This record gives sequence, C-alpha cells and structure tokens, in this order.
Amino acid sequence: MSRKTLTLSSFITESGEALKQPVIGYRTWGELSEDRDNAVVICHALTGSPEADEWLSGLFGPGNVFDPDRDFIVCANVFGGCYGSTGPLSVNPDTGKPYQADFPQLTVRDLVRQQQLLLDHLEVRSVKFVFGGSMGGMQALEFGIMDDRIQQMVLVAMGKAHSAWAIGVGEAQRKAIMADPKWKGGYYDPDTPPADGLASARMMAMISYRTYHSFEKRFNRKLQDDTGQFRVESYLNYQGEKLVNRFDANTYIRLTQIMDSHDVGRGRGDAESVLQRVSKPSLVVGIDSDILYPVSEQKELANLLPNGVYRELHSRDGHDGFLIEFEQLSGIILDFFKNSSNSNNSDVSKSQEVSRS
Amino acid sequence: MSRKTLTLSSFITESGEALKQPVIGYRTWGELSEDRDNAVVICHALTGSPEADEWLSGLFGPGNVFDPDRDFIVCANVFGGCYGSTGPLSVNPDTGKPYQADFPQLTVRDLVRQQQLLLDHLEVRSVKFVFGGSMGGMQALEFGIMDDRIQQMVLVAMGKAHSAWAIGVGEAQRKAIMADPKWKGGYYDPDTPPADGLASARMMAMISYRTYHSFEKRFNRKLQDDTGQFRVESYLNYQGEKLVNRFDANTYIRLTQIMDSHDVGRGRGDAESVLQRVSKPSLVVGIDSDILYPVSEQKELANLLPNGVYRELHSRDGHDGFLIEFEQLSGIILDFFKNSSNSNNSDVSKSQEVSRS
Repeated sequence: MSRKTLTLSSFITESGEALKQPVIGYRTWGELSEDRDNAVVICHALTGSPEADEWLSGLFGPGNVFDPDRDFIVCANVFGGCYGSTGPLSVNPDTGKPYQADFPQLTVRDLVRQQQLLLDHLEVRSVKFVFGGSMGGMQALEFGIMDDRIQQMVLVAMGKAHSAWAIGVGEAQRKAIMADPKWKGGYYDPDTPPADGLASARMMAMISYRTYHSFEKRFNRKLQDDTGQFRVESYLNYQGEKLVNRFDANTYIRLTQIMDSHDVGRGRGDAESVLQRVSKPSLVVGIDSDILYPVSEQKELANLLPNGVYRELHSRDGHDGFLIEFEQLSGIILDFFKNSSNSNNSDVSKSQEVSRS
Repeated sequence: MSRKTLTLSSFITESGEALKQPVIGYRTWGELSEDRDNAVVICHALTGSPEADEWLSGLFGPGNVFDPDRDFIVCANVFGGCYGSTGPLSVNPDTGKPYQADFPQLTVRDLVRQQQLLLDHLEVRSVKFVFGGSMGGMQALEFGIMDDRIQQMVLVAMGKAHSAWAIGVGEAQRKAIMADPKWKGGYYDPDTPPADGLASARMMAMISYRTYHSFEKRFNRKLQDDTGQFRVESYLNYQGEKLVNRFDANTYIRLTQIMDSHDVGRGRGDAESVLQRVSKPSLVVGIDSDILYPVSEQKELANLLPNGVYRELHSRDGHDGFLIEFEQLSGIILDFFKNSSNSNNSDVSKSQEVSRS
C-alpha cells in the first residue's frame, strides 16, 4: 500500500501563522470498522516516516500490537517533516519557492491538531490507543490530553516535558548544522545542502541514542581495515552520511525545536494537575539504559497519570532500544492491553452487580 | 609564580616524526628536597593548562593533596597543547610558519616521555605520586607503567583504554569542527579560526561532562530573559564561546586523537598482563554519575592493578565532578595516602621483624 495525501485549505499554527494548502502524507493499514471505533494511531519520532510497518516491523502482524486484520492503523508524517507532509522543503504558495528557514515554528500540540484533522477526514469516531516513542511519545501524550477519541495511550521513552538535558543535546546539534558553510542561514541550495553539519548532528544524536556498553560490545577498539579509522568512527560517519541522504537540515532543526516545545503544563497551569485529569489507561515504558530520556521521567509520568502503569524495557542499546527490542516491547504492550481489558470487564461486572442490587 | 619553559633540542614522536627545538611550558610549586624525592606530578586534562593551582584550587594548600610546603609539585602543558608547550599554533622551525594541521600525531606515551624529560631536567629522583583525571589520568597511568621514579598513582575518571563510546564522542566533535567553513583543512587564518565548529564541539563535550540531573536541577525549562532562549541553550552557547577565546581548533583535534591512542595494552601484549606487572600503590577514583568514563572502567582498572584501590566520588555533575567536588576528592586521596603509608610502615616493621629473627 502506498502513501496517501490529504490537502487542507489552511492550518493556523499555535503561534498564529498560516500554512496554506498544507498536505498531510500518511499511511493506513486495515479497515475502519462499521462503528468507526477500531482506529489506532502511531506517532513517529524525529527522523521517522509514515512507513511505520518498516520502523516498527516487529510490532506489526496478526495478534501483534499493530494488527491490520483487527484494527485500522494510521500513521501520518508530521508538519515540518520531509516524508510527505508540508515542511521546510515544500513550496510556499505565497512565494512559489520552498519555505526553507521561513517555515513556521510549530509545537507538539500543532502536530496533534494536524493529526486530529486527519482523523476527522477519515471519519474516525474512536481510537483504541495512540502509540509513540520519543518525539512520537510527546505527540501521543498530548493527543491523549487533547482528544476524547483516544481511549488509551502507549508512551515510550519520554516525559511530561522536554528536559534541559535533551534541549542541550538538540542545541549542540543545531549549532553543528549552522557551523556548516553551506547552511547559509537556512536558505541553502537544495543541491548543496549543509551535509557535513547535518552529518555531525546525526553523529552526536546517534551517541545519545545508544550507550557506552553497546558501543563497547559492538566496536571496542577495533580498527576498520581499509581506512585505519576506529570502527566506531567509521560507523558514526556512515550513520551521518545515511541521514544526509534521506533528510533535510531545516527539517531537522524545526523538529528538534518542536521537541523543545514539549511541556504538557505550558499555558495550562502546572503539568501535575494537567496529568491528574487524564484518567485514560496509559502504559508508560522506560528503557533502563536510556541516557537521553532516563527512566526517572517515565516513572514520574506513570505516577502522575491516575491510570498510568510503568513498565521497563531492558536493553543495552539505550534510547533506541524501543526500535530494537521488539519482542520484549510487544510482550509489555500486549500484556498491558490484556490487563486493562480484564479490569474493564471487572468494572463492567461490578456496575452490573450494582444495577442488579 | 609564572610559567617556566624548557627548550629541548629535539623530540622524536612514537610515530617517528621529529619536533625540532620543542618547548615545554610548565609550572612548579614548592622546593625539591635535598634527596630530590619529594616531587609530585600533575597531568592536565584536554583543555587544561599548567596552572593546576587554578583548576585544582580545592586540592592545593597546607596539609592538602598538593602542599607546596611539603612537596615539589610539577605541572607541564602537553605537547600538542596551547598553554606554553609546542603545539599546532607553534612555529615549525623548518618552514617558519605555524604547524597547524601538519603537527604530528602524538600518543599518550609521547606526552609521558615529554614529561620524563622535564623531570630529568629538574633532576627529580623520585616522584611521590602522579595525579591525573580524564586525559590527565591516561598520562598518569602510562607514567606509572613507564617510569620507575613514580611511587604511587592517583587515577581519576578514565580506564585502561579509550572506549568506543569516548572515541565516538570525540569523532562527532571533530566532525563539527571540520564542518566549519573556516576550518580549511586545518590551515585556517589564525585571525579567523573555525569558531562556530569549535564552539559546537565544546557544547557537545560539556553535555558529555555533565548529567541529565545536573542540567535539570540547574536549568530546568527556564528561559533566558533577554533572548527567549532556554537557559540551557544560552549556557551551552556561552561555554562554546568561552572555549573559543582560550583554545585552538587544531589543538582540540590533536588532543582528542591523543586520547583515542590511549590503550596500555597497545604493542605490549594484552592490557591485563601489562597492568598485573605494575605493583605500585594506586588509587583509582570513579565518579558515580560519569557517563563518558563510567565507573565500570575504574573498577576494572583498580581490579587489574595488583595494589589498586577503587574509591567512588559521589556527584550529580558527571565527569566534571572531579573538578567540582574538591572536598570529597581531597578526603579520598588523603585517606588513601594515610592507609598506604600505614601499610608501608607495617611492611617495614614486618621486614624488620624478619631481619631481627
């Protein structure tokens, strides 16, 4: 199945700017039920695409977390992205030229409103659960707060707000992109993008997504035969190049800034009381070796959500663990659904008992 | 007291290149005893200087770890550096121009040989102990292996070899410097150095030197009033600029490569058997929150050294903890000296008993 698109007449961002005729690129799997209540929403992370069956392959399939025979699964590229939705590479109808650095500053809440409009278009009445990890988790959490259609949340490797640490990691990466001569204030020639800066940012990011021990186990001090470089250097340079071939520097900067906007308390009073009002069953998964969004964030979040459950994924691979340890993650999520449906059933029997007496 | 210099006729690096008339910039405190056996050597870290009384202020003073009334303390800037010793900014006598990117690749062992020559010049017969943290610790460990004058080692926040993780962190930083248009392959105009690239590298480095929790405590999501930036962004940018004003990009690249060379096993068989032969009393200090050189490295090192003792510094501040938690570090080191002199005394009494019997 290929990517679909929805073109809106306009979208007003939280900051008040207008995106004209913005396009949403998205994928769906399965069929919406007659009651239009079997939808499942997947929110992607920083460099993710709507092709969730590729980057979450181990969670897709019959009886698995994402089962197209059972559910109607939706995954949209976010505004500001470069995988089918309007972003810095898209042409601004007002000027006839790509937005580039003029692309508006968005927030996580803008991305949720974007995806709400897509759900409206698809005539979804109820969403069984929303899933997201990292930047996807930030959207999933805001989705659960902002949209009554969401029945349950599965939130992986993020917290109630973007931390000083994560903001700092992003800022150092933005600085590297902007140090590239080809950056030109964000108005670069698409044929000569700031590739070295973006590669450097990705190299930093890859380090923050992994761990000391995973690098030690995989690379140690081994040398790359053909270059005499350490293998870890060659690996990181390769990862940098790989991203350059599939991503855009303005997009990278905009999306990292969107993550910095993440704070469920912003403009709503304190985060604690916002979360206290969200009683949907919520699974919050932390990865024990995550240095970018440490488990203290997920424990806090599960604790603040009245029906929050915390589960820990064991991985040597740090933040990226949720894109690697599929079998474990699948087990954790399916177990959560089983328990939450059991407790729903027992709630039902309790109320039936009450009505009988 | 001001910086002193020693000019050598030449220095042949491990790789076989010659530095002609290289200069060693160094500082000393206190007086060498008549027996020339009260020397103490301090090895500095990546961006450190010979002014150890500034960056180790809390360890200097009467009765403290570094006591000029008791000991003759020596701290030299390393070759490849930019605080008084010959490095990439120095003029190459062969060309009459600064070395810049032509400055030879050095190793940690080269830096030790450099400092051995300084000790020879100062006519030091015995070194009570060598101290170093991070890159300084790598030198201190090699010093203990290579030089019989060293009686004891105090090794902080490093391990037996530079890990894949630490190499990766360095490589991402080098990439950021090289992405700067002013880098020009390392042959930049000294008046227009690759400041943005070096600043970006420093920003990444600062993150790796600190921790999630220290950033969270210090900055949280607070904004800088005058710019609207997050405070952590403003802090990191300030740290980047600060380093640019006191450091050099080629120097930064050379010194991070020197750290990558660190491996006590290189060319000597395996690290384990090398360390097994070093029976000097050695204190190895790990910092519980260090994500760059995690405590597993220091525990392993203390374990491999026949007379190694492991002690842990408690700090929220990560790798930089040893430049912050002076009171705690001073207590750990003084305690180690007290115990090792007690056990020496009891060794002495044991041998006296033996000789008496």
